[in-house]
Amino acid sequence: MELILGANQYGKAQVRMVVVDRSTPVHSFVDLNVGVTLSGDLEDVHRVGSNANVVTTDTQKNTVFAFARESPVGEIEEFGLRLARHFVSSFAPITRARVKIESSSWSRIPVDGEPHPHSFVAAGSELRIAEVVVDQEQGVWVLSGLKDLIVLKTTGSEFSGYIKDPYTTLQETDERILSTAVAARWRHGALLTAGEWDASFDTARAAMLESFATVHSLSLQQTLFEMAGAAVAASPGLVEVRLSMPNRHHFLVDLERFGLDNPNLVFRFEDRPYGLIEAQILVPAAPDPGPAWESYPLL
Amino acid sequence: MELILGANQYGKAQVRMVVVDRSTPVHSFVDLNVGVTLSGDLEDVHRVGSNANVVTTDTQKNTVFAFARESPVGEIEEFGLRLARHFVSSFAPITRARVKIESSSWSRIPVDGEPHPHSFVAAGSELRIAEVVVDQEQGVWVLSGLKDLIVLKTTGSEFSGYIKDPYTTLQETDERILSTAVAARWRHGALLTAGEWDASFDTARAAMLESFATVHSLSLQQTLFEMAGAAVAASPGLVEVRLSMPNRHHFLVDLERFGLDNPNLVFRFEDRPYGLIEAQILVPAAPDPGPAWESYPLL
Amino acid sequence: MELILGANQYGKAQVRMVVVDRSTPVHSFVDLNVGVTLSGDLEDVHRVGSNANVVTTDTQKNTVFAFARESPVGEIEEFGLRLARHFVSSFAPITRARVKIESSSWSRIPVDGEPHPHSFVAAGSELRIAEVVVDQEQGVWVLSGLKDLIVLKTTGSEFSGYIKDPYTTLQETDERILSTAVAARWRHGALLTAGEWDASFDTARAAMLESFATVHSLSLQQTLFEMAGAAVAASPGLVEVRLSMPNRHHFLVDLERFGLDNPNLVFRFEDRPYGLIEAQILVPAAPDPGPAWESYPLL
Amino acid sequence: MELILGANQYGKAQVRMVVVDRSTPVHSFVDLNVGVTLSGDLEDVHRVGSNANVVTTDTQKNTVFAFARESPVGEIEEFGLRLARHFVSSFAPITRARVKIESSSWSRIPVDGEPHPHSFVAAGSELRIAEVVVDQEQGVWVLSGLKDLIVLKTTGSEFSGYIKDPYTTLQETDERILSTAVAARWRHGALLTAGEWDASFDTARAAMLESFATVHSLSLQQTLFEMAGAAVAASPGLVEVRLSMPNRHHFLVDLERFGLDNPNLVFRFEDRPYGLIEAQILVPAAPDPGPAWESYPLL
Repeated sequence: MELILGANQYGKAQVRMVVVDRSTPVHSFVDLNVGVTLSGDLEDVHRVGSNANVVTTDTQKNTVFAFARESPVGEIEEFGLRLARHFVSSFAPITRARVKIESSSWSRIPVDGEPHPHSFVAAGSELRIAEVVVDQEQGVWVLSGLKDLIVLKTTGSEFSGYIKDPYTTLQETDERILSTAVAARWRHGALLTAGEWDASFDTARAAMLESFATVHSLSLQQTLFEMAGAAVAASPGLVEVRLSMPNRHHFLVDLERFGLDNPNLVFRFEDRPYGLIEAQILVPAAPDPGPAWESYPLL
Repeated sequence: MELILGANQYGKAQVRMVVVDRSTPVHSFVDLNVGVTLSGDLEDVHRVGSNANVVTTDTQKNTVFAFARESPVGEIEEFGLRLARHFVSSFAPITRARVKIESSSWSRIPVDGEPHPHSFVAAGSELRIAEVVVDQEQGVWVLSGLKDLIVLKTTGSEFSGYIKDPYTTLQETDERILSTAVAARWRHGALLTAGEWDASFDTARAAMLESFATVHSLSLQQTLFEMAGAAVAASPGLVEVRLSMPNRHHFLVDLERFGLDNPNLVFRFEDRPYGLIEAQILVPAAPDPGPAWESYPLL
Repeated sequence: MELILGANQYGKAQVRMVVVDRSTPVHSFVDLNVGVTLSGDLEDVHRVGSNANVVTTDTQKNTVFAFARESPVGEIEEFGLRLARHFVSSFAPITRARVKIESSSWSRIPVDGEPHPHSFVAAGSELRIAEVVVDQEQGVWVLSGLKDLIVLKTTGSEFSGYIKDPYTTLQETDERILSTAVAARWRHGALLTAGEWDASFDTARAAMLESFATVHSLSLQQTLFEMAGAAVAASPGLVEVRLSMPNRHHFLVDLERFGLDNPNLVFRFEDRPYGLIEAQILVPAAPDPGPAWESYPLL
Repeated sequence: MELILGANQYGKAQVRMVVVDRSTPVHSFVDLNVGVTLSGDLEDVHRVGSNANVVTTDTQKNTVFAFARESPVGEIEEFGLRLARHFVSSFAPITRARVKIESSSWSRIPVDGEPHPHSFVAAGSELRIAEVVVDQEQGVWVLSGLKDLIVLKTTGSEFSGYIKDPYTTLQETDERILSTAVAARWRHGALLTAGEWDASFDTARAAMLESFATVHSLSLQQTLFEMAGAAVAASPGLVEVRLSMPNRHHFLVDLERFGLDNPNLVFRFEDRPYGLIEAQILVPAAPDPGPAWESYPLL
C-alpha cells in the first residue's frame, strides 16, 4: 500500500544565543532561544532518504548565529522575519519557514544607585515570544506574545452559579485567590514596521495586566476574555488574541479542625491537577490567519 | 467594538490516579494521568461571567475518580470513551469533550524468581497515551499512541547528500549514532471493540521498534516514514500515524587533539539544541479526522 | 548481625502556602515553600515499625498552616524559628528540627502608574531562603540566603594562566561573558532580633550583586570569594558565607567559517555540561556551626 | 578583615557520554553522565585570581572523553577510580578528586524474538550511580548505588500508632498503598576488585527490591531499615547503606459523596507535598568513611 505523506516539517529547536551590543561603553544584549522549522518538497527524504532537498538543522543553527552578526538583531519579530525569509528565498525546495523566538529579560545591576553599564541580573522567568511564518505562496504572518507571566490577586474574584451534578462537591465562593500563568499570542492585521513591535508588545502586555488587576472576576474565562479585549483595545492593529491560562489553584485551608478561623488568609497552593482555560478572541472580519497558528499541528 | 469568541475550551489537567484490581490475591493496577477538556455553549461565561453552563473542572476531576469505581477502567481508550461520552450526554451546553490519558507501565518485582503478587517496580518513563474526542454532532474519534520511547542504534545510520550553502559546516558521514525519543499517535479508520485496543497498541509499538532497529537510516525523516509504514502494515485498521521525533544528537568526540583515534566509539550527547522531525502519514482515502487532532489548537 | 542506625531524619517537603495580610485595604501576602525535618529517638520506628515517637509528616504540614494563622508569619527566619522550636519543645522524642523556607517575590501590578492594592505579578524565579535548626542540646542556628539569582556581565572577565596538560584545548581569553546562577547561604554569629532579618538580607544580597558587577574577574573562584567578602563586609554579624555558582558557559561562536568576524558579540549558551564552583568563606574565629550545615548529610 | 577560605571545590558537571564497544558485530554501549570535582591548593585562585593551580573544567571534560578511549570503560566504579586517581596523581596542587557517574540502562530491541545486535531501547529512568573519592593523604573511597528506582505495593502496608496532637488529622489505616522512589548509596569495607562491582550492585539491588516486596510495612522508616539490612545481608563487604525515600502519597479517594464505596481501590497520587525519609545504616565497627559522604558539603 502506497502511503501518503501529509503535513511534515523539520528544524532545529532551542538555539540559545546571547548577542552583545558593544557599540558604546554602556553595553546591552539580547538573550534569545530560537527555533526554526522548515517544510516544502520533502517527499524524497521521507520515502527514499535522499537529502538533496534538506537544509540541515545544523546549517539552520549556524544561520541563526551568522545573521545575528551580519546586521543588528533588532526586535525579535524583525529577526524572525529575516531568518524565515532567508530560508524560503534561498532554497527552492523550502516553501515555508517558521521561526519561533523567545526572549529573556535582564535588568542592570544597580551600583551606588546607578544602573551598571555591563552587569545584569535576570529579570524573571517571563518570556516574550515571536513567531514568524513565511510561506512562498500564502504570504507572511507574525505572532507576538508572552508566556509564564504569573499573576495573582488576593481578592476581587468569586466563583458560583455553576452546574451541580452528583459528582459536584466544590463549594461556591464570593471570595477567592485568583492566580494564573498567562500564555498569550496575538496577531496583527498587517505587519508592523520595524521599530513598532516593541511598543506594541509593551502596550498589549500592560493592558492585559491592568485588566487582570482591575476587573472583578466571576470566572477565569471572563477574566481571560477581558484581558484579550483590553489588549485589542489598547494596541491598534491587533486582530486576534489567543490565551492559555492555567488555574493556579489556591485552596483555603480548613483550620477549624484546629480551633482557628480562616477568613481568607491561609491558602495552600496545589499545582496539580490544575484547571486550564483557553480561548481565541477575534475582531470582526479578522483577515484569514493562514498557517500562522499551525504551530503544533502534528502532535 | 464587539469581539468574537472563537474556539475555546477548558478542563482539568493532570488528574493522577491509581486504580487497584483486588479481585484476586494477585493484584494489578493502572497508573493514569487523565486530562479532560470541554467545549460548547460557553459564550456567557466568557462575556459576562455567568457560570450557568459550566461543569467545573473540580467536578470533572471527581468524575474521573468515580467512573474508575463504577465499572472497571479497562483499556485506556475505553475509559476515555466512557468519560467523554458522559460529559457530552449529561450536560446540554457541553457539545464536545476531549479526554487524554497517559498510562505508566509497571512490572512485578521478582522474588525468588517469581513475580510478586502485589509489589511492583516502575517499568520506565515511556507512556502509553489515548485521546478521545466526542462531538455531539460530528461523532467520535480515538487516537492511540505513546511518547518518550527512547531508542538508539550504534550503527546503521548515515547522513549525507544534503544542501550545502555558505553556512554549512556539518560533515557528511556514513556512520553515526542515531537516537530519538519517539512520540507517536495513530488513528483507526473505525473504532475498535473493547478488548482490541491493547493488542493493537502492542502490535503498532512492536512494529515501529522493529523498523527502527532494522531499517538502515539515511535520514531521520526516512526512519520516521518507515516506522509509520511499519505500524500501518502491522496493525489492521490504522489510517493515520503522526510522529514527532527529536534528534538526540550524539557527536563524535575529536580525540586527535590528544593523539587518539576515534573510530565511532566515543560520543558526547548534547540535548540542546536539537533537531526535530515531524510528519503525518496516511493511508489513501483515509476518512476525515474531524477534530481529532485539534488537541493543541489554541496556543 | 545487629545493624547500627546512624543519622536519620524524616519530614514533609514542599508545603506550598500563601498567607494574605488583609488588615488594610492594601493587601500584601507571602508565598512560601516550607520543608520540615525532624530527628530524635526514632530507633523503634526503624527497627520494629512502632510509630509511638512519630509526629506524622501530615501533622507537620498542618502545623505549618495553623502557625501561619495563629500569629503573623513575619520574616521567614522568625517563622522558621517558631516552627522548629515548636516541634522540639512539644514532643519529647523529637530532639532536633530543621525548617527550610523558600520565599518567592511578587510585585504589585501598576495600574495608571500606581501599584495596585491587591493584584500582583511574580517578580522572578529567584528565591530567598532561610534554614533554621533547633537542637534540644546544642542550640539554635539560622542560615539565610538565596538561590537562582542569575547574573551576567558582558565584559570585565578573563581567564588565563591555568594548567595546560595533554588534554587541554581551552583557549585563554582576556575577554569573555561571565554568567552564573548564585546560590548563597550565610550564617550570623548570633541570632538577629525579629525585624532585623529583612534588612540584613537586603544588604547582603545588594553587596554580592555590586561585587559581581564591579570586580574585574580573573576566575569565577575569585568572583565568588569577592562576593562573599562583600557580603561579610556589608552585613555586620555575618560569620560565614557559602556559595555555589555554576558557570553558565557562553561560548564565542566561530563565525570566520562564514567570512565574518566576531569581536565578542555573538555567543551560544550551553547549559550542559557546566562548571561548578563552591566555597565556604569564614571570618576569623567564627563560632562553631554545630549541625547548621548538615542539611543534606544522608544522601 | 582577612577572611578564611574554608572547604572549597570546583569541577565539571553533566558530561554526557556514550561509549560504544564495536569489537564484535554485537555492539554494546555505556551511557554515562560524569561529574568531576577537584580540590587542593586553591587559595590563590580565590584570593587573587591566579589560575596557576587550576586544571580547567574544560580539561576535566576532555579527560573523561579521552580516558574512555584509552582503555575500556569497564565498571563505572573502575572508571571513576581511573579518573580520580589521574587528577590527584597528575597535578601537584590537586589533592582530592571526586568523580560521580550515573549510568543509564538500555535493552536490546527484540526483532523476530531475538535481541537486535545494535539497536536499543531505553530501559527506564532508574540510574545506577558510583562515586569515587581519591584523597592524596587519606586514601580512596567508593560508593555505589542507584536512584529513581520507583516501587509501589498495593497492600501489605499500614500506618497507625503515631503521636496525636491538636494538629493531627491523619486517619490511622491498616491498609494503604506504599510507594517510593528509592535513592540508595552504599559503601564497601574494602575496595572490590575490578569485575566484582557489577555483581555486587545487582545483588544489593535485588535484595532491596525483594525486601520492599515481602516485608509487611508498618512505616516507611521500617521498610527503609529492612531494605538496608537486606542489602547488607546479601552483599558481602557492605559496611554502610544510606537511603533517601520520598513517600509518594496515594490517598484513598472519598467516593461516599457520590454514593460509592471505595475498598482501597481508587487512589489519587499527589506528588507535592511529600514525606521524605532518610537514614544511614551501618555494620558494627564500620571503618571510618573519611570524606566519602561529603559530597554536598557546601550548599
